Amino acid sequence: MATTQVIAEFLAREFPQSKCVVEAIGECSSTVSHPIGFDELRPGGTVSGPILMTVADVALYSAVLGELGLVALAVTSNLSINFLRKPSAEKDIVGHCKLVKVGRTLVMGEVMLYSRGDEKPVAHVMGTYALPAKT
Amino acid sequence: MATTQVIAEFLAREFPQSKCVVEAIGECSSTVSHPIGFDELRPGGTVSGPILMTVADVALYSAVLGELGLVALAVTSNLSINFLRKPSAEKDIVGHCKLVKVGRTLVMGEVMLYSRGDEKPVAHVMGTYALPAKT
Amino acid sequence: MATTQVIAEFLAREFPQSKCVVEAIGECSSTVSHPIGFDELRPGGTVSGPILMTVADVALYSAVLGELGLVALAVTSNLSINFLRKPSAEKDIVGHCKLVKVGRTLVMGEVMLYSRGDEKPVAHVMGTYALPAKT
Amino acid sequence: MATTQVIAEFLAREFPQSKCVVEAIGECSSTVSHPIGFDELRPGGTVSGPILMTVADVALYSAVLGELGLVALAVTSNLSINFLRKPSAEKDIVGHCKLVKVGRTLVMGEVMLYSRGDEKPVAHVMGTYALPAKT
Repeated sequence: MATTQVIAEFLAREFPQSKCVVEAIGECSSTVSHPIGFDELRPGGTVSGPILMTVADVALYSAVLGELGLVALAVTSNLSINFLRKPSAEKDIVGHCKLVKVGRTLVMGEVMLYSRGDEKPVAHVMGTYALPAKT
Repeated sequence: MATTQVIAEFLAREFPQSKCVVEAIGECSSTVSHPIGFDELRPGGTVSGPILMTVADVALYSAVLGELGLVALAVTSNLSINFLRKPSAEKDIVGHCKLVKVGRTLVMGEVMLYSRGDEKPVAHVMGTYALPAKT
Repeated sequence: MATTQVIAEFLAREFPQSKCVVEAIGECSSTVSHPIGFDELRPGGTVSGPILMTVADVALYSAVLGELGLVALAVTSNLSINFLRKPSAEKDIVGHCKLVKVGRTLVMGEVMLYSRGDEKPVAHVMGTYALPAKT
Repeated sequence: MATTQVIAEFLAREFPQSKCVVEAIGECSSTVSHPIGFDELRPGGTVSGPILMTVADVALYSAVLGELGLVALAVTSNLSINFLRKPSAEKDIVGHCKLVKVGRTLVMGEVMLYSRGDEKPVAHVMGTYALPAKT
């Protein structure tokens, strides 16, 4: 199992434009966050949907890497997001990911997204990663 | 029904950071595109997933605005994306949206995303927008 | 909040063909089960997918009724199921539902499905119910 | 490519309880139907959700079989259904499936469901099938 630091460095190379921070990698799980500022807000003070999806995608990918090692070839095949509440404009977005299936060809996980410190989630995400066929 | 130009100007104000271009608004439909350059690519020459989701979200929202007028209050409640093929690193992403239901409280639509000029889609998106309750 | 027994009787009238059993209704939650026998199995001893979806749908609906009262007018707008593991051919299917959002127009919840007594889930379901506009 | 009749006979053996009828298999496509009677209706004259999901699942599976041959080992990994309109209580449900991706490990397709003869769809389904790893 790769450590939090190894995964954080790997993702920084793979996604150089991303502001996502890998906070922790656990057993079949991860915690990721994203700072919120002008670039992430829409008029009215809402965090843009794609930012939430980005955090979920990185959280899922981090948990996959934590479980399977740095297999950069795993690709997202499905991501489904339910928007639950308006996120705060002044707090980081934090995503907690838990893998619910780690199979030979598919890995599935869910992510709950929060405005940091809030109890109620702002979005729920279910994602599927396809692993390359062994050759 | 709002015209293509009115919606394009509205979205430019609502999403000042976005590079999405509203190309056309039709009956229950829209075409939207996004230029692809360094900011949108990941190592290996793949368009990042969140860019695809952004194009789909703007395509859906544009079609909703085209059908219902500039009701900025419609909010995405669900977005589900299936990634089908690796997009080209050298072509715009183009999204064609078609609304499949326009109800009183929910609007649902699907978006096919393409690398411009290619015949086979790179992703399929299904989205739901919730409309504010009439008061 | 309606009690478990009231909801069980209501569902028995609404879905006379269903074998689903409402086991418990809690705060924003429910537990529902379904016996497994010849009618629910496919060759090879797999529980059919639609049975899993039925259990999830009834679990979600029961939790909605528990929270909002016997509003038979709530309708499913989206149901998304991820199949995780092959269910046992010899155990009931049990669904645990938890509502993650109870809004004025939408209720969203997730359901984990298990073969009774097993620790690992056989499927994960996310569902959305639309509530009728108040008039 | 398996013919319509071969697939219909295969499914009749695999799903002996099902009333689904395979009407046609085409290139990456299928048409499937289901008669509607007492067993499929809920009070108020609505076709039950699980029946719609069943038709979609069989339509997807038929199209997969049509494309890949009788690989009974393909398994549904995700099924996401959006309910669009109330189906008629007096008409068959008809599903038209189109595969949008046929990969080595995943096949994805969409299904539009109609009350026979009606122009507007009653539901939209997106499904993913996982293929067994080659050995």
